[in-house]
Amino acid sequence: MLPISPSPTPGLISFAYGLPDPDLFPVASIMAATSSVLDRFSNRALQYGSFQGLTELILAVTERLKRVEDVSLLPEQCLVTTGSTQGNDLIMRALLKPGDTVLLETPTWPAIIGILKSHSANVVPIPIDSYGLNVTALESTILTLISKGILPKLLYTIPTFHNPTGITMSLPRRLALLDIARRYDFTVVEDDAYRDISFGGPVPQTLLALDKDDRVIRLGTFSKIVAPGLRLGWLLGKSDIVAKITTIRNDSGTSPFVSYIATVYMMSGKFDEHIAQVVEAYRSKALMMLQSISSNFPLSVSWTQPSGGFFVWVTLPAHQEMSSLLKMARERGVEFLPGQVCCPESVTDTSHVRLAFSMVNLNEIEEGIERLSEVLKETL
Amino acid sequence: MLPISPSPTPGLISFAYGLPDPDLFPVASIMAATSSVLDRFSNRALQYGSFQGLTELILAVTERLKRVEDVSLLPEQCLVTTGSTQGNDLIMRALLKPGDTVLLETPTWPAIIGILKSHSANVVPIPIDSYGLNVTALESTILTLISKGILPKLLYTIPTFHNPTGITMSLPRRLALLDIARRYDFTVVEDDAYRDISFGGPVPQTLLALDKDDRVIRLGTFSKIVAPGLRLGWLLGKSDIVAKITTIRNDSGTSPFVSYIATVYMMSGKFDEHIAQVVEAYRSKALMMLQSISSNFPLSVSWTQPSGGFFVWVTLPAHQEMSSLLKMARERGVEFLPGQVCCPESVTDTSHVRLAFSMVNLNEIEEGIERLSEVLKETL
Repeated sequence: MLPISPSPTPGLISFAYGLPDPDLFPVASIMAATSSVLDRFSNRALQYGSFQGLTELILAVTERLKRVEDVSLLPEQCLVTTGSTQGNDLIMRALLKPGDTVLLETPTWPAIIGILKSHSANVVPIPIDSYGLNVTALESTILTLISKGILPKLLYTIPTFHNPTGITMSLPRRLALLDIARRYDFTVVEDDAYRDISFGGPVPQTLLALDKDDRVIRLGTFSKIVAPGLRLGWLLGKSDIVAKITTIRNDSGTSPFVSYIATVYMMSGKFDEHIAQVVEAYRSKALMMLQSISSNFPLSVSWTQPSGGFFVWVTLPAHQEMSSLLKMARERGVEFLPGQVCCPESVTDTSHVRLAFSMVNLNEIEEGIERLSEVLKETL
Repeated sequence: MLPISPSPTPGLISFAYGLPDPDLFPVASIMAATSSVLDRFSNRALQYGSFQGLTELILAVTERLKRVEDVSLLPEQCLVTTGSTQGNDLIMRALLKPGDTVLLETPTWPAIIGILKSHSANVVPIPIDSYGLNVTALESTILTLISKGILPKLLYTIPTFHNPTGITMSLPRRLALLDIARRYDFTVVEDDAYRDISFGGPVPQTLLALDKDDRVIRLGTFSKIVAPGLRLGWLLGKSDIVAKITTIRNDSGTSPFVSYIATVYMMSGKFDEHIAQVVEAYRSKALMMLQSISSNFPLSVSWTQPSGGFFVWVTLPAHQEMSSLLKMARERGVEFLPGQVCCPESVTDTSHVRLAFSMVNLNEIEEGIERLSEVLKETL
């Protein structure tokens, strides 16, 4: 698997990594928040904290959910995590026994594949199409599993501005997924890392908000909208799941220092303004990438039209030699993520490529897509 | 189990919690370091980082080990952790399968009992005496285990300024432990959270430094010498163990932001000065507690003489009703940690009490010990 961070190669334009743009980090606001925290709360911010997380941060997160999404949650339904990666690990630790079956939306976020493997999950892929998770395939897969005596324990999905495809699950699909989850009684993990990076169109309600049945756990993170270096996120769900995860986390809780900084920043009034700026920047990048692709890519190639998030998913003609394609691309000074990296071992992908527009600037996007187009035109 | 943090009760003097004194947190230095980090390294400090940890922090930790302890380690022998609790969890995750046998120095740090339970370890207690881990009991316990076909996988110890007893394992005991570990082939986890809080006497070398055999993993933390709210520590050992833990950690690595702050602080020159101040403060507290105990406790009670760390361990006559003793103490405005909290389920302790002097001031120590003495004189 590719490492999470690029080692910068001079002249190489990388579309391989879904990292936020460091030029968008709110450095001055984090500085101001830190100063305020150390002035006003140093004794508490630097001491051990609560395992569930800083109460003030939980209130700031749930208050914002109410304001932005009109979703009402109790504080006991929110857990502060040391980032969404840890949040996912804690969920799997709380809910899975070795060998338990997990339905995995495929392709998916590469790290979740490793997390599920480390919990010895039996991973069963469920395909997506342009409306999101394929619920027909989901139900038929479940029926096949049941015929073998297997009941799935949970399903993992990124329904909004999906990584790696950029696709958003439609409202009917969301309702169908929740109906299936209710009928076959499994938990739905809704990884919602990109929801706030919306380029302006209508976005369906979250699975958590649509769920009448308390079976959705939703993950959120400050990594895309503030900065991943803080390692800070949250998870939302039924209060007894939150309580269970609080009990099993073996880390003495998430950093109160970082939690206070995020809380003060969220309450400063600059937070919403910052998110608006971040969204506008990623929207421009997405537009530039889609325009460049449209002007340059050969006709045998198709791609998604993300309305939010960090990614475009490109479909090449079937059966490419992906490693030689990547090698050629790098020789031309551009790189991408092969779709296989986003698939569990049981799935073979030789025709997709993930392009992240998040970390590169507009000129690099234009230039990088031109370089990649040349390679594709020569190869396909 | 008691929660990790006290809810302050007016007038109650608590010796129950081993928290560092917040008045000793280096607030101005953390502020200065944060400012410097955000000025100079914001792009990297706020971005995703490496799974092993910030290289600069690893170098600062290993450089200090060389300077202070004359121990030479390669960077690949050090992993940055999100605190020692997480470090312990990662070790157990990397090394244990459910049902594996762990030799647990008893009494011990309460949290390790929960961590071992969450990994479904078969916990076998090994007693300590005034020279530290009882190596005779250790070997005879191992022989009994072997006679049942059980090979222990690892041993967990806090050899220096032990929590909860304050006892330091002697050099001969350390060498004997390493010899036994070599002969019966198990890993030794050396939790070294208190080593820097030394009140001045000679301290034996760490197990890691004495180990010729690459079987010791040593844990260190910034929680006692800087501030626990950062959630930052490190782990030292054989490079292949460090590599294995780096691979299995499901958290995208420890916060680069916090890691940079600690690095800049360590390199500022104020760090060593700060540790000296912290040590002097805890030394005064320990002295005050020992003097007050010596002047006030009834003759039927004995106690340890810690030469570092946060704790005094008190031995009462056998078979106390500990919960009624604690209730009486609280009514008089003082509390302690019952020894049972520091023991795994298979061990019954009805005659010990842990007194933490770390978080209380000198007047509180004097007053609190007088209150506790009255209760003991009436009860025993």
